[in-house]
Amino acid sequence: MSRVHNWQWFLELVVPNEYHVHGIKRSLVVRETQYQVAEILESYQYGKMLVLDGESQSSERDEYIYHEVLVHPAMILADNPKKVLLLGGGEGATLREILRHPVERAVMVDIDEEVIELCKEYLPHLANGSFNDPRAELVIGDARAYVENSKEKFDVIISDLTEPLEEGPASILFTKEFYGSIKEHLNEGGVFVTQALSVSIINNKAHTAIHNTLKQVFPLVRSYHAYIPMYDSDWGFVMATFGRDPVELSEEEVNRRLEKVGLSNLKYYDGETHKYIFSLPKDLRNAIANETTIIEDNKPFLIPRREKFFGA
Amino acid sequence: MSRVHNWQWFLELVVPNEYHVHGIKRSLVVRETQYQVAEILESYQYGKMLVLDGESQSSERDEYIYHEVLVHPAMILADNPKKVLLLGGGEGATLREILRHPVERAVMVDIDEEVIELCKEYLPHLANGSFNDPRAELVIGDARAYVENSKEKFDVIISDLTEPLEEGPASILFTKEFYGSIKEHLNEGGVFVTQALSVSIINNKAHTAIHNTLKQVFPLVRSYHAYIPMYDSDWGFVMATFGRDPVELSEEEVNRRLEKVGLSNLKYYDGETHKYIFSLPKDLRNAIANETTIIEDNKPFLIPRREKFFGA
Amino acid sequence: MSRVHNWQWFLELVVPNEYHVHGIKRSLVVRETQYQVAEILESYQYGKMLVLDGESQSSERDEYIYHEVLVHPAMILADNPKKVLLLGGGEGATLREILRHPVERAVMVDIDEEVIELCKEYLPHLANGSFNDPRAELVIGDARAYVENSKEKFDVIISDLTEPLEEGPASILFTKEFYGSIKEHLNEGGVFVTQALSVSIINNKAHTAIHNTLKQVFPLVRSYHAYIPMYDSDWGFVMATFGRDPVELSEEEVNRRLEKVGLSNLKYYDGETHKYIFSLPKDLRNAIANETTIIEDNKPFLIPRREKFFGA
Amino acid sequence: MSRVHNWQWFLELVVPNEYHVHGIKRSLVVRETQYQVAEILESYQYGKMLVLDGESQSSERDEYIYHEVLVHPAMILADNPKKVLLLGGGEGATLREILRHPVERAVMVDIDEEVIELCKEYLPHLANGSFNDPRAELVIGDARAYVENSKEKFDVIISDLTEPLEEGPASILFTKEFYGSIKEHLNEGGVFVTQALSVSIINNKAHTAIHNTLKQVFPLVRSYHAYIPMYDSDWGFVMATFGRDPVELSEEEVNRRLEKVGLSNLKYYDGETHKYIFSLPKDLRNAIANETTIIEDNKPFLIPRREKFFGA
Repeated sequence: MSRVHNWQWFLELVVPNEYHVHGIKRSLVVRETQYQVAEILESYQYGKMLVLDGESQSSERDEYIYHEVLVHPAMILADNPKKVLLLGGGEGATLREILRHPVERAVMVDIDEEVIELCKEYLPHLANGSFNDPRAELVIGDARAYVENSKEKFDVIISDLTEPLEEGPASILFTKEFYGSIKEHLNEGGVFVTQALSVSIINNKAHTAIHNTLKQVFPLVRSYHAYIPMYDSDWGFVMATFGRDPVELSEEEVNRRLEKVGLSNLKYYDGETHKYIFSLPKDLRNAIANETTIIEDNKPFLIPRREKFFGA
Repeated sequence: MSRVHNWQWFLELVVPNEYHVHGIKRSLVVRETQYQVAEILESYQYGKMLVLDGESQSSERDEYIYHEVLVHPAMILADNPKKVLLLGGGEGATLREILRHPVERAVMVDIDEEVIELCKEYLPHLANGSFNDPRAELVIGDARAYVENSKEKFDVIISDLTEPLEEGPASILFTKEFYGSIKEHLNEGGVFVTQALSVSIINNKAHTAIHNTLKQVFPLVRSYHAYIPMYDSDWGFVMATFGRDPVELSEEEVNRRLEKVGLSNLKYYDGETHKYIFSLPKDLRNAIANETTIIEDNKPFLIPRREKFFGA
Repeated sequence: MSRVHNWQWFLELVVPNEYHVHGIKRSLVVRETQYQVAEILESYQYGKMLVLDGESQSSERDEYIYHEVLVHPAMILADNPKKVLLLGGGEGATLREILRHPVERAVMVDIDEEVIELCKEYLPHLANGSFNDPRAELVIGDARAYVENSKEKFDVIISDLTEPLEEGPASILFTKEFYGSIKEHLNEGGVFVTQALSVSIINNKAHTAIHNTLKQVFPLVRSYHAYIPMYDSDWGFVMATFGRDPVELSEEEVNRRLEKVGLSNLKYYDGETHKYIFSLPKDLRNAIANETTIIEDNKPFLIPRREKFFGA
Repeated sequence: MSRVHNWQWFLELVVPNEYHVHGIKRSLVVRETQYQVAEILESYQYGKMLVLDGESQSSERDEYIYHEVLVHPAMILADNPKKVLLLGGGEGATLREILRHPVERAVMVDIDEEVIELCKEYLPHLANGSFNDPRAELVIGDARAYVENSKEKFDVIISDLTEPLEEGPASILFTKEFYGSIKEHLNEGGVFVTQALSVSIINNKAHTAIHNTLKQVFPLVRSYHAYIPMYDSDWGFVMATFGRDPVELSEEEVNRRLEKVGLSNLKYYDGETHKYIFSLPKDLRNAIANETTIIEDNKPFLIPRREKFFGA
């Protein structure tokens, strides 16, 4: 039958007084895990969506954009990395993209096993079997404790953490101190990249603060961006290195390196996309240049929890 | 854990440009049956709610109001009825209230077995075991065909059908012809009662049309009303008899009859409530008096489907 | 032209997680007065609406219900009152209904002159010239101060105040102490009536507390109710007297008294409506009977401000 | 006073089942003009917004993005254009940006004088006096008739029209035939540019169709894009020329040409922004490459009117 019944809606707060609203076919599962509220919704336009603490994370329809953009620029800049550390990334899609490269070892540290299991059950194509790849190691635990206790060094470290919500699991994973620890676990020539929230002019304070914080720690820091349809926003990422500069990679060089590792068939990322995402509009460049906030363990940048806005 | 996550909403259209919005904790199940879309939602204020084709039907928190008001006035007026026919009533709560009376036989005819099964599984306290009562007979089938093919007569006939939605299962169950058939299956002294949609001044056309249609068929017709919190509306019912008049039952007589059948313990209905529900505000009385529409098989009163209003 | 453009909505919070939504044609005026935010909206279903601090107050389409129900039962019970005091009532519609009776003097005390002026300009048919009636006296000021400083006695006192919102102008006008002052300004045989918020089962705590508070002060207290379409709720009122009982007025007596003062032509209120509104459903009677809260000056009953719920 | 009262919302449909919602402080004016419904809203996040037929057009806070991106790339590519034709552009902000260049003549043709007057009154900084510039000529009339009846040739033609809504004023201004007329009015070396709707993957059919239609007419066609916060979308534009290619303009050359005309002080557009906007993500390039639709006068591309989605 083709009857529709779209009288359910998922309201996602962008900032106070701005919402995005998705028509929902059905809610497949809701689980209050030890760390957050996880939910799989099926929406009309984006198919199945993973929602954590009221923030949409990944959708069937457009997850390739976020995950390709988070993973491949760093991997291409590191130029044939062998050891990769992934912080967060519960759905397994970031791990999936990492493993498309000829890496030897990919460690994923995520605190919330229940979210991983939910995604395996309801969104299996996101991980697409990555957790069974012999090169992958899954560690259930706190990302910060793992980094601080480990002696291992990596070629690429990818931070795919949820927003630093008040009392949320990621609240102290965006600080200068933690970024210092990450730096110590990067090999010479290594690349660190983190998702870094919206860069829209009405909502870019978290991004510019993360950028400025990383500048206190790393010699070279680059913001980049891509429009993510489900987030209805221009989304920011920050890359940090000891000197390698993604802006110096030409369109042709990006395409050449992708071809070398057999990744000329990506859906979103290639040389021209690289040019797009590493070219920032002037107003955003100015906002970054003017930022002075440094996020520290005792001065964290916290985002108010959404439920406050709905009268709970 | 007590964390809330109320970013899902159920929008219920009242009329164009007027909605009620319920914050939803979770959707427990959605099923596209052969006849309609059935859904069990868990809302913050009303607990579990049954929703059919986008219309809320019953909630844990306030279902007693609707079901007591639909059943007991007719049963009390019929004064110790023995045989009762129920049209619709999938949740089993109307049947539950009927069986609190010392009836000998209660036949329930509902077209949608899947809805009945869903309610048994997710809202078992609504039927509260009524389907297993030896006095109850459940017939899965079309209410109109059942009535027209039966030779049996009843003391009370109760119509607990969904709204006459375009292409919905109840679209021809509110017509003069069908009411004529119902009359033929009522015993002398019998009482027919039907739920009859909103009586709010912005939305009472269906009610007044049903009232006027029944007036073409029965000697005595009375509208009554009760505020149903989940519907956010003053809800209408119409009773039709061969002469017995609920308005002539005094508060004391209602209480006496209730006591006689051991029903002094209802939550909503008693003698004073009877006075309330059978006293209509003047503007509604005038609207009923001025109504000339007669609903007929070839001139049905259809309510547009809700999905039209949400851009599906 | 008949083109519509209903993409603006007015969301009215009922309780957390329950909203009513009105499609808005246009906002005619918004004014931040000294005391509150006043707005005149034009909605599709209710015509022009007065909204104070986010709460809908009166609409063109259904204001007659609220105003007739607030005024006439008290006036009829007082049986030919000559002196009436009105607290609040900015739109002038309550005053209008009072002046339909053969009173000699009607004093209206309202704190917010700007609201009165806005209503005169945008909703002139609400007051319908009442402010120019020689029997009417308008006092701009605090209702409590007026009562406490006055030595005058009245036959009827009507409280038409907005909800006791936190930091709102009406927050200490629902207390035992204030009701004590009101009692001292009522003549023997006099009647006090106050609007008393929703009586819906999900939202009747303010009503039952007002009822119980008045019971500490007056010999006879009666709640009554009427469904107000724009509020989407069964709305409560409380009447308090020295012994006169509205429940003992028969339908015929109400109609007789209305006829005597030439008010057989009301749109909503008459003898049968009187029976409806003074007959309470059993669950509400129980809620009132079980209430123990007494509202006092130092224990006020405050309703959280709506803007908290929308992320401002 | 700083009290907020955000209980009004503007819902903007993106596609069925996807909305953006802006909290509204007040509606300043609504006007049903001969051609459309025009409204100036004041929102919390974007300040004053012009809304035509339910679609947001320009906001105080982010209008510079859209207008700089629409105007300057074409002007820079044309390299010191003298004569410019603007189709649409009622707010005057596109004209404002054109006149920042040392042009000799700028003709603006807009059908809806009432919208222009409303914007002059309520959003005067958008035009910022441009209509009084002696180089500007304002023609009130149909853009298509003007082009087809004119013999004048231009260096740059800019189409700043509203969406081709069903029965809207712009429905036949996106066709192959009209683009043919435009081509005839462009000088050798001239540049045509049009706003071309969303390029988000859930909503890019209009854009790819416009691109493909222009390819039937012009030797060189380039899509470009910029994220517009108020639209919550990656927004598309299409440029068409006789061979000049914006992609071949280096970052440095763009900056050099901007400096030459004294426009190094733009807020959004410069050489790096040029690189961003003319670099398309791979999925969008593929969607454009696969498009076969050609929009013709008798096969227009029409967007359903929004009011259909809200139950009017």
